[in-house]
Amino acid sequence: MSLRKLLESLPIPIVQAPMAGASSPEMALAVSRAGGLGGVACAAFAPDEIARSAALVREGTDAPFSMNLLVNSPPAEPPGLDAALERLRPWYQAVGAPLPERPNRFSHDFNAQFEAVLAARPAVASFAFDLISRERVEALQAAGCYVVGTANTVAEAKAWAQVGADGISAQGMEGGGHRGNFLKGIDESLVGTLALLATVRHAVDLPVIAAGGIMDGRAVAAVLAMGASAAQMGTAFLLAEQAITSRIWQEAILEAPDDPTGLTRAFSGRYARGLENRFMREMRPVEDELPAYPVQNRLTQPLRAAAEKAGDKELLSLWAGQAVKLAERGEAGDLVRRWWDEAKAAAAELARRTSG
Amino acid sequence: MSLRKLLESLPIPIVQAPMAGASSPEMALAVSRAGGLGGVACAAFAPDEIARSAALVREGTDAPFSMNLLVNSPPAEPPGLDAALERLRPWYQAVGAPLPERPNRFSHDFNAQFEAVLAARPAVASFAFDLISRERVEALQAAGCYVVGTANTVAEAKAWAQVGADGISAQGMEGGGHRGNFLKGIDESLVGTLALLATVRHAVDLPVIAAGGIMDGRAVAAVLAMGASAAQMGTAFLLAEQAITSRIWQEAILEAPDDPTGLTRAFSGRYARGLENRFMREMRPVEDELPAYPVQNRLTQPLRAAAEKAGDKELLSLWAGQAVKLAERGEAGDLVRRWWDEAKAAAAELARRTSG
Repeated sequence: MSLRKLLESLPIPIVQAPMAGASSPEMALAVSRAGGLGGVACAAFAPDEIARSAALVREGTDAPFSMNLLVNSPPAEPPGLDAALERLRPWYQAVGAPLPERPNRFSHDFNAQFEAVLAARPAVASFAFDLISRERVEALQAAGCYVVGTANTVAEAKAWAQVGADGISAQGMEGGGHRGNFLKGIDESLVGTLALLATVRHAVDLPVIAAGGIMDGRAVAAVLAMGASAAQMGTAFLLAEQAITSRIWQEAILEAPDDPTGLTRAFSGRYARGLENRFMREMRPVEDELPAYPVQNRLTQPLRAAAEKAGDKELLSLWAGQAVKLAERGEAGDLVRRWWDEAKAAAAELARRTSG
Repeated sequence: MSLRKLLESLPIPIVQAPMAGASSPEMALAVSRAGGLGGVACAAFAPDEIARSAALVREGTDAPFSMNLLVNSPPAEPPGLDAALERLRPWYQAVGAPLPERPNRFSHDFNAQFEAVLAARPAVASFAFDLISRERVEALQAAGCYVVGTANTVAEAKAWAQVGADGISAQGMEGGGHRGNFLKGIDESLVGTLALLATVRHAVDLPVIAAGGIMDGRAVAAVLAMGASAAQMGTAFLLAEQAITSRIWQEAILEAPDDPTGLTRAFSGRYARGLENRFMREMRPVEDELPAYPVQNRLTQPLRAAAEKAGDKELLSLWAGQAVKLAERGEAGDLVRRWWDEAKAAAAELARRTSG
């Protein structure tokens, strides 16, 4: 067996993007049960939650699923922390919440999270934000997991191939949420899905999962025609019944104007794509000065929680991809089956078009 | 007849992007003869050259072709001209060419060019950089031309629909050469081809030609599966026999590193995508201060000519899209036929994949 075979033998070659704060283990279960590859976002989970979420999916299905981690090692005492907090004071005031104390922890311990994923032995373990070591790749493979690395550029795909990854998740610039770039800055790491998929396939002999801007079955058919082993969809699940997106996030999606997204690092210290709002706009001139992920992410957590409670979408991270306006409501398994029917119809239409 | 019908009844639904300084009327002829839609770039042509190029294509084929203009109205006496010239002095010195005199003209007269295209009556008249008036759209339609407007965003596609255009050329951010954005700034106008195609189709009831990152038959199949009426290819023709790209431009393409392109307005005063080089890198900090297209374009013309002569690719505009590494040599008509064979093979493979 190889990752390529696993992906190409899925009843439905749709991968559900693991989205911390938006997807749920229940969504992963529904997608895997429907024949796709569900993905559990583990970034915000403590080790015991990682174990429990794997157990939840396994109770419901024997089908493969993936687990995802965001690679990071926050400094114990980041410089400029007080200034960074102070900068957020007017925003905390705007939602009527107190400025938080200096946190003494910024994210879960990555090493412990890694061990929990290794122990959970999902069919696929995927990573973003940075490489993991060759030793860790081999430990996962020895445990029976395929390793997928997220790449925003060809150079990043090659770097993952070098540490022995089994496949590449090619994240085109259309995608919502955090960018995975780790070798170069954001301006040099924004490649459209079509071009990224084609050039990564050309440069690296690994199966490629295409991500970014895929919102319906037509787009699934499109990336499969390009030679992707599977299509990854994230934003397309934001209105699903199993999504844990807040009511105001969902409303913002449903009411989104044309061309609604922008990039920001103001919420988390790492560039991410979301529905443009006041916090993104007003923080843009200073966003280069903010602490890196996960520090800024931790500092704005209480702000975003308060904004959500107050129903204020202008101060909330509303991650979404460029084609978010095509998002539809539905049960996650039903959505996957619907997109696959659309993909089949698009393929049949294409066959007619090209047989003339 | 409608533009949709014209595009969908082409023997090969591949549109050759008109590229001033890179494509040629001979290329347009070869593509239209092969069954695609050839495109004559008229931006750099005087009215009599526009007439001659239409005649050249018509002598060789009865098949439809398109002609393209770049909408602009340069100021007679742009402010800051001397400073803009002065800023280029070290670059002119670097290639051993004299700093040019203040030009008294920056581009051909657009009104005269428009009249020449109208008189030439191509099957398709396409425009980029800005809208044309509803009156001009109607004049072209009355002459038997379909009007295609270039859009980088959904809002721009809607604006073209409002002036009565027959179709949209949706230019994804992957594409090489000049960006067509005219409603908002560059940062708000970079949408990936997949997302742009999907959202423009969703928002506007006009046939869409997909452009940006399409370099082979797989990508042609992909955008057709997405519902595009045709696939537009530009960078894919840069190594064609009928291309007028210089030897060093072609060499730079053949030797391009991974992830090789960037955006710059330093060469022309309008953002364009090309192979990253020294001029782009070193001018980046000041590029916002340069005069707008076509003024800066005119001021750097002798510089680029001298750099080409000296074989210095670091001072030359090397327009190319994000997937340029897939470019292949060949006769333009052969390339079109090859891509169509690839598209058919990709469609057949997709049909197998989706019939399981």
